[in-house]
Amino acid sequence: MSGDEFDIISQHFTRQPVAREDVLLGVGDDAALLLVPAGAELVVCMDTLVAGVHFSADTPAAAIGHKALAVNLSDLAAMGAEPAWATLALTLPEYHPVWLADFARGFFALADHYHVQLVGGDTTHGPLTVTVQTHGFIRNGKALRRTGAQPGDRIYVTGTLGDAGLALQLRTAANEGLRKRLDYPQPRIEAGLALRKHASAVIDVSDGLLADLGHLLEGDDLGARIDIDALPHSQAFLEAIEQPGPGARPAKYELPLSAGDDYELCFTVPPPQCAEVEQRLGGLACGCTAIGVIEQVPGIRCHYRDGRDYQPVSRGYLHFVDE
Amino acid sequence: MSGDEFDIISQHFTRQPVAREDVLLGVGDDAALLLVPAGAELVVCMDTLVAGVHFSADTPAAAIGHKALAVNLSDLAAMGAEPAWATLALTLPEYHPVWLADFARGFFALADHYHVQLVGGDTTHGPLTVTVQTHGFIRNGKALRRTGAQPGDRIYVTGTLGDAGLALQLRTAANEGLRKRLDYPQPRIEAGLALRKHASAVIDVSDGLLADLGHLLEGDDLGARIDIDALPHSQAFLEAIEQPGPGARPAKYELPLSAGDDYELCFTVPPPQCAEVEQRLGGLACGCTAIGVIEQVPGIRCHYRDGRDYQPVSRGYLHFVDE
Repeated sequence: MSGDEFDIISQHFTRQPVAREDVLLGVGDDAALLLVPAGAELVVCMDTLVAGVHFSADTPAAAIGHKALAVNLSDLAAMGAEPAWATLALTLPEYHPVWLADFARGFFALADHYHVQLVGGDTTHGPLTVTVQTHGFIRNGKALRRTGAQPGDRIYVTGTLGDAGLALQLRTAANEGLRKRLDYPQPRIEAGLALRKHASAVIDVSDGLLADLGHLLEGDDLGARIDIDALPHSQAFLEAIEQPGPGARPAKYELPLSAGDDYELCFTVPPPQCAEVEQRLGGLACGCTAIGVIEQVPGIRCHYRDGRDYQPVSRGYLHFVDE
Repeated sequence: MSGDEFDIISQHFTRQPVAREDVLLGVGDDAALLLVPAGAELVVCMDTLVAGVHFSADTPAAAIGHKALAVNLSDLAAMGAEPAWATLALTLPEYHPVWLADFARGFFALADHYHVQLVGGDTTHGPLTVTVQTHGFIRNGKALRRTGAQPGDRIYVTGTLGDAGLALQLRTAANEGLRKRLDYPQPRIEAGLALRKHASAVIDVSDGLLADLGHLLEGDDLGARIDIDALPHSQAFLEAIEQPGPGARPAKYELPLSAGDDYELCFTVPPPQCAEVEQRLGGLACGCTAIGVIEQVPGIRCHYRDGRDYQPVSRGYLHFVDE
């Protein structure tokens, strides 16, 4: 790619809808100058999407732009943080103006929705790789962490589980609802904000419920009991698994337990707080569903509602395993 | 790569020497929690190094780890910021424990030197790509920017120019001094701190003096006059260009003007401040050299000390051009 092309590329990322007052200097100097509000902690997280690993070659550019930001905002949501700024490192194999315009459209539509300003980054030549860092705020001491769950706390998830995993499994045969869940995950920012002061521990479900719930347990050597009949499914999911073919009925429990990429929040709530949490999250589009309880004994135990045990086949979707 | 290998990889980056009090939560949760000092602005910058583009296949892993952090710290230096935290997105083609240990050694040796703590990041599978974001502080309103130079201001550079470019040109024939300048650039953090309140504009020289000085001029439509006999050379550079072969004598002016990767600072100083700046930077190992003056007329004009004009062949090293 030529220097002129890099100049054009940079123009895609300087014309953006959001201009925040706490950005003293954005894209264009050696670094950005930013103001963190008094009494707030800065929350930062970084995620990379690699072509052929985290998304397939046929993924629309707008979806890649959306998702690169969404998976980062999902981490902020899991901390209960309010999003503020993003930086973008974009490595491109070639200069392709239509692709780039679509990528920027997907990125900025989501950024705009959450009033996130792109404040810097780097564009380089090489195999398609997208790294985003997001920055948010949370009042001192109010962050939601992975540690903090107690025996007796109820386990909840936002939204529905297994949709992205089923879309991945069905590939082009996936219906539009599933495909949208895989390509355009919605970070649960509002849910994260509503959970502050109420949830005892929070994580976002990126590698599968069992794997990520496991992270909430490991620090304190706790266990969990999951009612698999309570796992929330989307209408698109239920319709798809009724069809004959690869998306067969065993997927009903297996995908919500083990598939990644849903980017819902999994969180624990002490019993006295449950009514308020259910009311607060019930007012959001994603809602929330109680799926189990934290126990003293380490390990995750799954059961049907009638009490019979269920043995999950897989413990989580390891997106980095060569398959 | 397997999940176990990713666990081992993460261990390379959790054992680190620096533990800062302003890091409330570092590597290990969904995001890091950080405290910016009262009265300070947050300074952030991000740079990506791609294998085969920004470094060659034979570059030692320790040098890649060092350089990925150094080029970012160089941007902080150009703002006059004090470094604090880093995040690292590392995309690896394979699990190679020796390479990884060397990479981490190079990264953390430099991080330790500047009391920088790694607070988060992401490790993924794919073509070798390293993205680092650094975060620093500067007192409100005290940042050094690219804009601000005035006609009559003197132009300075830290250290010496052309070393990295000559190393790149000579490849394996480069002497150790030149090779070290290419592989282990030293961010001029101390110089940046010393320039606060004194320099009118600052940039780091990553794409070549003419290209980067051009950025200091473009906002205000200014020009510059450069005394090419004043351009500072290292002993290693002068020895290498005395040798017959590809590093021939024309390199003496051309490389300091146009080669990238030196990561020195180029800055402008109003005449009343020059004595103090020369004294402050004279006390640092890199020192500084006056090389020219800002002029009202746009464009960069180069001349020998005897007054004859010099026409540079190239305007800057475009690292992204396919060559």
